[in-house]
Amino acid sequence: MTGRGKVKVGVVGSQFQADIHVASIQQMGEDAEVVAVASPTAGNAEALARRYDVARWFTDYREMLREPDIEMVTITAPNRLHCQLTVDIANAGKHVVCEKPLCMTMEEADLMIDTCRERGVLLMYAEELFFTPKYVRAKEIADQGGFGEVYLVKQSEKHFGPHAAWFWDVEQSGGGVLMDMGCHGIAFCHWFLDRPKLRSVTAQLGTYVHGDKTKGDDNSFVILEFEGGQVGMVEDSWARHGGMDDRIEVFGSQGLAYANLHMGNALNVFSEPGYGYVVEKAPSTSGWSFPVFEELWNYGFPQELHHFARCVRGKERPRATGEDGRFAQLAIFAAYQSAGAGQRVEVDSFDPSDVPKPIDLWFSPLSR
Amino acid sequence: MTGRGKVKVGVVGSQFQADIHVASIQQMGEDAEVVAVASPTAGNAEALARRYDVARWFTDYREMLREPDIEMVTITAPNRLHCQLTVDIANAGKHVVCEKPLCMTMEEADLMIDTCRERGVLLMYAEELFFTPKYVRAKEIADQGGFGEVYLVKQSEKHFGPHAAWFWDVEQSGGGVLMDMGCHGIAFCHWFLDRPKLRSVTAQLGTYVHGDKTKGDDNSFVILEFEGGQVGMVEDSWARHGGMDDRIEVFGSQGLAYANLHMGNALNVFSEPGYGYVVEKAPSTSGWSFPVFEELWNYGFPQELHHFARCVRGKERPRATGEDGRFAQLAIFAAYQSAGAGQRVEVDSFDPSDVPKPIDLWFSPLSR
Amino acid sequence: MTGRGKVKVGVVGSQFQADIHVASIQQMGEDAEVVAVASPTAGNAEALARRYDVARWFTDYREMLREPDIEMVTITAPNRLHCQLTVDIANAGKHVVCEKPLCMTMEEADLMIDTCRERGVLLMYAEELFFTPKYVRAKEIADQGGFGEVYLVKQSEKHFGPHAAWFWDVEQSGGGVLMDMGCHGIAFCHWFLDRPKLRSVTAQLGTYVHGDKTKGDDNSFVILEFEGGQVGMVEDSWARHGGMDDRIEVFGSQGLAYANLHMGNALNVFSEPGYGYVVEKAPSTSGWSFPVFEELWNYGFPQELHHFARCVRGKERPRATGEDGRFAQLAIFAAYQSAGAGQRVEVDSFDPSDVPKPIDLWFSPLSR
Amino acid sequence: MTGRGKVKVGVVGSQFQADIHVASIQQMGEDAEVVAVASPTAGNAEALARRYDVARWFTDYREMLREPDIEMVTITAPNRLHCQLTVDIANAGKHVVCEKPLCMTMEEADLMIDTCRERGVLLMYAEELFFTPKYVRAKEIADQGGFGEVYLVKQSEKHFGPHAAWFWDVEQSGGGVLMDMGCHGIAFCHWFLDRPKLRSVTAQLGTYVHGDKTKGDDNSFVILEFEGGQVGMVEDSWARHGGMDDRIEVFGSQGLAYANLHMGNALNVFSEPGYGYVVEKAPSTSGWSFPVFEELWNYGFPQELHHFARCVRGKERPRATGEDGRFAQLAIFAAYQSAGAGQRVEVDSFDPSDVPKPIDLWFSPLSR
Repeated sequence: MTGRGKVKVGVVGSQFQADIHVASIQQMGEDAEVVAVASPTAGNAEALARRYDVARWFTDYREMLREPDIEMVTITAPNRLHCQLTVDIANAGKHVVCEKPLCMTMEEADLMIDTCRERGVLLMYAEELFFTPKYVRAKEIADQGGFGEVYLVKQSEKHFGPHAAWFWDVEQSGGGVLMDMGCHGIAFCHWFLDRPKLRSVTAQLGTYVHGDKTKGDDNSFVILEFEGGQVGMVEDSWARHGGMDDRIEVFGSQGLAYANLHMGNALNVFSEPGYGYVVEKAPSTSGWSFPVFEELWNYGFPQELHHFARCVRGKERPRATGEDGRFAQLAIFAAYQSAGAGQRVEVDSFDPSDVPKPIDLWFSPLSR
Repeated sequence: MTGRGKVKVGVVGSQFQADIHVASIQQMGEDAEVVAVASPTAGNAEALARRYDVARWFTDYREMLREPDIEMVTITAPNRLHCQLTVDIANAGKHVVCEKPLCMTMEEADLMIDTCRERGVLLMYAEELFFTPKYVRAKEIADQGGFGEVYLVKQSEKHFGPHAAWFWDVEQSGGGVLMDMGCHGIAFCHWFLDRPKLRSVTAQLGTYVHGDKTKGDDNSFVILEFEGGQVGMVEDSWARHGGMDDRIEVFGSQGLAYANLHMGNALNVFSEPGYGYVVEKAPSTSGWSFPVFEELWNYGFPQELHHFARCVRGKERPRATGEDGRFAQLAIFAAYQSAGAGQRVEVDSFDPSDVPKPIDLWFSPLSR
Repeated sequence: MTGRGKVKVGVVGSQFQADIHVASIQQMGEDAEVVAVASPTAGNAEALARRYDVARWFTDYREMLREPDIEMVTITAPNRLHCQLTVDIANAGKHVVCEKPLCMTMEEADLMIDTCRERGVLLMYAEELFFTPKYVRAKEIADQGGFGEVYLVKQSEKHFGPHAAWFWDVEQSGGGVLMDMGCHGIAFCHWFLDRPKLRSVTAQLGTYVHGDKTKGDDNSFVILEFEGGQVGMVEDSWARHGGMDDRIEVFGSQGLAYANLHMGNALNVFSEPGYGYVVEKAPSTSGWSFPVFEELWNYGFPQELHHFARCVRGKERPRATGEDGRFAQLAIFAAYQSAGAGQRVEVDSFDPSDVPKPIDLWFSPLSR
Repeated sequence: MTGRGKVKVGVVGSQFQADIHVASIQQMGEDAEVVAVASPTAGNAEALARRYDVARWFTDYREMLREPDIEMVTITAPNRLHCQLTVDIANAGKHVVCEKPLCMTMEEADLMIDTCRERGVLLMYAEELFFTPKYVRAKEIADQGGFGEVYLVKQSEKHFGPHAAWFWDVEQSGGGVLMDMGCHGIAFCHWFLDRPKLRSVTAQLGTYVHGDKTKGDDNSFVILEFEGGQVGMVEDSWARHGGMDDRIEVFGSQGLAYANLHMGNALNVFSEPGYGYVVEKAPSTSGWSFPVFEELWNYGFPQELHHFARCVRGKERPRATGEDGRFAQLAIFAAYQSAGAGQRVEVDSFDPSDVPKPIDLWFSPLSR
């Protein structure tokens, strides 16, 4: 199952994230190429395919799965479809790259992981923070002992709301900003600390600015306590003006680091007339702004997909897997439970089986 | 009781904070002057007095309270002495300025407030963040509607450990970094949001770096939920290298602000040989550093004591009172309880009567 | 001539800078008080006086000079009046505080200095950069050896144009941005380097954005070479959007410093609706902005005028004098000559006698 | 002459810059591959080749030029060899990539350009600032009109001294920091402003810190005036502590930008024990530091060499050519002349023919 030449890739979806996948694979084209895209909405797949000069497009992804040359399929569809897609792709004998969050329920997570294992395909989890160059550099410094013992890792992502309207509907998304972006920070802290066992989760959530559009949380704090005593602190918002903001802080017994992806990375620009594009979700290009550059690269998307293609060829082992997605999923369930119950959730005795989606626990927490 | 001329001030204490009081009053000398200092350790009061050219010094503060010209006494003694001192000063008919935190127990807080009220003297609470120029500016912008509805205020203070050895001993301090510095952020968020009623407190604490020296917490997160739905987030650390760090973040429905007192305020200096002084608790003057300037002024100490002197003259009304100190004290009890019990503490049903000191609730939380 | 009590001050002028003088003296009120203001435009002096509760106002400053209790007079009138005012004030036996630049010609500079010396009054030069807290801190670090031997000092001030319309008219102002703001940086570099002898001046000037309004330069570079080999680099602009910008850089054999008065000092704010005031010359309060706080203090105006009042009382010696103003004036003449002639001006053989105003040398440089 | 498959590349040199070329080509391996390296010092070429798994190595580059499959040769040898190498490579029918500065004399520049033209090969000039992602982004904003009319571009590069000892010897280098790094900024300003005709050059140079090691300048200011009235300001130093510093500023009639490659791009780290690597020329990894990440990418080296390979395939046209190198070379001659003569050099009447190397004009300027 480790072929030769470029890995041929199919993409499921045609929106924001699908675009990123195709562009990223083309940017690091040595190891992979997108040969097909699939999207149910008539015309969407074709439009995407034509924009990037991709030869094949499908409205039914199952048709795409019958193409024998495709070795790896990436999933950028809504969260609630991730599980079914993964199972179908694995059963077609193709490797899976699944966007975050992994799925809706813990049962789905287990099914996805088990199916891929049984079918002998890789389940790769598209957590780009494991590849974000600035954050990877901080991890290297930690690994070199530059901070002594790391006891606290913080990650925060904030902007003014999601890419697509379906995120506002918790039935489709499974939760608010904690579900949408908290999965990043949760997986990141876990990975940065070398994946210690999670002991407890404490969370505070609220809907402060977008209550007219959603029942989901638009601002969240999550505190993760791990077995070795380390702490992860994840803070996310859909209620923060002024463009994207993504940052980490690392604290150790002998040092610390701050890293800021947007305001600390960009040009500092003042423009009266404005200009083409600042950064995802920035409100305006007039006045002072922090325009992003080499956006995909600075997030780590091309590096991520390049890595996944090399995993398919057996040259590397996946840095982010279904287990990472499952970890984040469990922590998200626990965080909604904590916010709903006003209690620190001890993970060992926490069982969210049969809960349809994480945010349900905020509205109706399990009784202990 | 509103005399004329400069307010004559006595200072109790001779350490770090006493020094700040005397220097600050001299810096804004139009309204007040320090005429006496008192400290029990032989020689300390005299040394401080001579350093600042203060005429009188005492080893027994009760003697100082008998000086008829003194109108206002500031307390910079250890936390456990705040209550007795306040009662004695009030009974001597003098106005009180009490350093933070206000005291050890809720009973003490009530006694201090009641005694001052009964004796007709002011109980002023030395929360300098209400006077920190940069933060005051953020509050003005909030009051002008620049952020829309403010739904989240964050304050964080971090360095590598307290000024004096007695802080490590929780018997004397009543708690760790949450007790020492959390009181700042708690009072600040409350004040910034125009003192809404507190609904609940959620906290996470740990001892990560200084476990060899203290049983107290050296890193803390506190989440305050207010009745109007606003949130305060207070983060403090005694386990952060690299000098002092004091910052706020303000988030509203239509805007936001970041303000950083040290790294964003100072010069950015690189020095091979090093130089005299960077900032409180900075480890070194070699390499890159962020030297502070006009340190007292940028914290707001002279402005604070100037304001208090004018309150004594009836020209202004105290911006920070015993009630602010009491508020912070209650929230600190609640935060230790929350961290100890792993539960969000609903303030309405929380009663820390008879608990000798806040940190006791971390070790032995009250059962609900 | 060193009286007692507060120094009584008269202010000549009623515009932007007069306002700063009155406000600054009131802010540090222990040593001085403004008792009178004078301005020829009917109503202006009265309006300023009423705004700050000043008892006396005059339309003829000579009348004000006849008031016997006034000991010090500050000049905030247009540049071309500085000399006559200084001579009249000195002849009335009062100390002089003169705003920058000192005057129009070298003959005027000499007359001002000589007259004040003969009449036994102080000629104090209002260069506030000698008092700007952040820059003073950098000087202290330099004096402590933190940078080794300092070989280069840079100062830059930039915004989008002057406070009053008369600045655009070079007949009244004597020059463009180099005359208006270059005098700051020139005096600053000289002072920072402990006033070494000036060897040469090289300058480049242009009118890039405001050619419709002025014949004066709106952007300037000035390179000062001193006898010890040190260099000063002064960069000014009236053609820079986005609010005020004032910064220094210091380079030495063993270290360096960057200091930024506005972008590095302020809050970092994003606001949709906007708010009251950002900073002098900022274009808007919407979007991202860097609002200033404690504006006068952070520039050093109150400290400066406080110092001058103490000089009048003989408690301190003037940190900035007519000689500093004369130095800057000579360098400004040399800089216009350099830009006009396309040559480095060797100061020893440079004689701008009888040149009516500095900018004339840009249009018609002296032949060597 | 536009073949197929990956462009086969030979590299001349084995030091710092050769390493960057090989690593960069491997990082963007789709279009090119390094197949040979040549260096006269025994063992050096082999060591480099083995480090990067390159199959062939030579001590005589002329042997390498006889390899028929090599299509493009990159030059990383000392400046004084650039001309001879270029001529030999062109005569061997291979495309040339020449590191900056282009050469020593104007005669050499013309010979290199002419020879390549005659032999029908590309002369590509390795000015990576044309590819530096953050700076390219600023150029895009300028091209979109975001700054209005750009009237001033500044570029500055500073650190504490060159990579190899031969730079200190002006006989080998042709000049000091102006020759070494000024060529970057000169070409950059020219390119950013869309290559207007150069009218005049004004420069100030000095040797402030490294006078014990070199007769060359270790700090330089260069002011370029272009025909349209725009200005370039280039500032370089070998006398600046604290690590690398590379920044640009862009000023236009309607906006401006600041971009900082190192301090504004990196993590902000404090480490007591220190760690592996900060950035080129940083003095230490302890204390506060600004570690670089994805270093080659953020400078633009892989993008640059990728672009050059595509030029060889006829897919793109060279963004940086011998003419750019010649432009910088002429400006460097003019800048040394200006600093030496204390005069603005009018380029139209400036002829540095027969001057052996640029820095000669600082020591002995041409008389007008």
